Amino acid sequence: MNIGIIGAGSIGILMAAYLGRDHKVDVYVRREEQKDKLNKLGVSCDAIDQPVSIQAHLLEQHNLGAHDLLIVTVKQNHIASILEKKLPDYTPLLFLQNGMGHVDQLLDHPNPVLVGVVEHGALKQNDNQVLHTGQGSVKIASVNSEDNLKAIINELNRKDFPFFYHTNYYEMLTSKLIVNAVINPLTGLFQVKNGMIVSNPHIKQIAKQVCREACQSLERSFEIDWKRVLTIAEATSENQSSMFKDLLEGKETEIDAISGYILQKSPVHLPYHEFLVQAIHALEKEREVNL
Amino acid sequence: MNIGIIGAGSIGILMAAYLGRDHKVDVYVRREEQKDKLNKLGVSCDAIDQPVSIQAHLLEQHNLGAHDLLIVTVKQNHIASILEKKLPDYTPLLFLQNGMGHVDQLLDHPNPVLVGVVEHGALKQNDNQVLHTGQGSVKIASVNSEDNLKAIINELNRKDFPFFYHTNYYEMLTSKLIVNAVINPLTGLFQVKNGMIVSNPHIKQIAKQVCREACQSLERSFEIDWKRVLTIAEATSENQSSMFKDLLEGKETEIDAISGYILQKSPVHLPYHEFLVQAIHALEKEREVNL
Repeated sequence: MNIGIIGAGSIGILMAAYLGRDHKVDVYVRREEQKDKLNKLGVSCDAIDQPVSIQAHLLEQHNLGAHDLLIVTVKQNHIASILEKKLPDYTPLLFLQNGMGHVDQLLDHPNPVLVGVVEHGALKQNDNQVLHTGQGSVKIASVNSEDNLKAIINELNRKDFPFFYHTNYYEMLTSKLIVNAVINPLTGLFQVKNGMIVSNPHIKQIAKQVCREACQSLERSFEIDWKRVLTIAEATSENQSSMFKDLLEGKETEIDAISGYILQKSPVHLPYHEFLVQAIHALEKEREVNL
Repeated sequence: MNIGIIGAGSIGILMAAYLGRDHKVDVYVRREEQKDKLNKLGVSCDAIDQPVSIQAHLLEQHNLGAHDLLIVTVKQNHIASILEKKLPDYTPLLFLQNGMGHVDQLLDHPNPVLVGVVEHGALKQNDNQVLHTGQGSVKIASVNSEDNLKAIINELNRKDFPFFYHTNYYEMLTSKLIVNAVINPLTGLFQVKNGMIVSNPHIKQIAKQVCREACQSLERSFEIDWKRVLTIAEATSENQSSMFKDLLEGKETEIDAISGYILQKSPVHLPYHEFLVQAIHALEKEREVNL
């Protein structure tokens, strides 16, 4: 296939490296420096023998060409600016963000819209290198059209980088969102690894209330999701969540895309979520001050 | 006067040093080592020229003698064990704890019961030395009997260590409790100095909700108390709260005596207080692990 990837953060580079082995890949970035480096050196991933050649372009100057699939890997707050651009007609768009705030804007999009959940661990090393820190898969579901979806997934899928089809995008995304909404802000606030959600009984007590509120807002089953949160926190007990990492590195977190979305969907007050949104913003502000 | 002081932490030593200049002071402690040191060296305070002689006794072995006033400075969770002892009849008891949980047990006590709010900064250096880090006053009110109260205050009061009479113990203690309930857990959770309650807008937003809940529980005016909290946080902006310090030093905090009391008094859920009580216990547990 001819694949375009918008954004070259950790997930963008990981996708480019794995998909670039079998497909023609164009990567669209914001910075000239990153574009030049990608064109000169290709993309490197520790799990792949040698650098993979791709073509890089500046997102601002270059029209998005004719692609069989456009994968959008920018952070959620940059999606609006992508949607303002002229997107090629009929090309399926695959969105790989955390959170769900962007999905509402995509429901009526004329192009086929797909959303994906990335269950890989990936750590960006620099502008063209990524570490594949956790082997996983990418689940894909359609938001507005199933046309060709299974054929696309079939083309992307490889044993060492699997893609799976999911029937229900809402169920797929809310399921991920609940886990993120419990694990991310609490590990960020207490500055602990994922396992503390289970092993510190007081954090667990707070986590339970956060999960209960999130399930109430998204109309999901608390019993099922709470078990899943605990299972995932245990399975990833030694990992730092992305929000914990963002705070450590003095970066803006995705708290508004995650907990903010859940708050916005709820008809009633969710005091634990309100507390956490303010608390994470408070820490973002403290970290800025300390930088 | 003949004054007994139970407990020789920072406040106990500070009291012994200032009152020992004009009164006969006996101090009751738990540890033999501290008793011996106090008897040998007296008590020292950086603001007082020379060590002040007092008599020290072991609380377990020695009956509480005949005193004109017994001042209880132990932490709130040790009060029950003090009340189990044989206390001398008729002797006024002055309690100087943070929190209010102990006051309910004192309402029907046969002795005159007084409570005080200590607005001094004091930092214990070792078993017989204290730094007087902030000049303030001690406010005293009666819980069950006004007999002799003004005469006692008159005897204690000195220009460089003032005591004031307060008419309404409930108003005096709840007023202090509200301030502690907002500033202590939040500075502990975010590991910041008092001033951040005002200068970080997100912490301020959480503080406002905590203050609102506390005022609801204790039936106080939110508008008045919120202004007072902000004034005190600003006036003490460079200070570390006692709870922040306790967490830094890996000590047990007074969260149950402060926020726990407010929760217990409230007929309705107070989600911010529930969150904070769990959060501070979570940090106590993390600190233990890290020690």
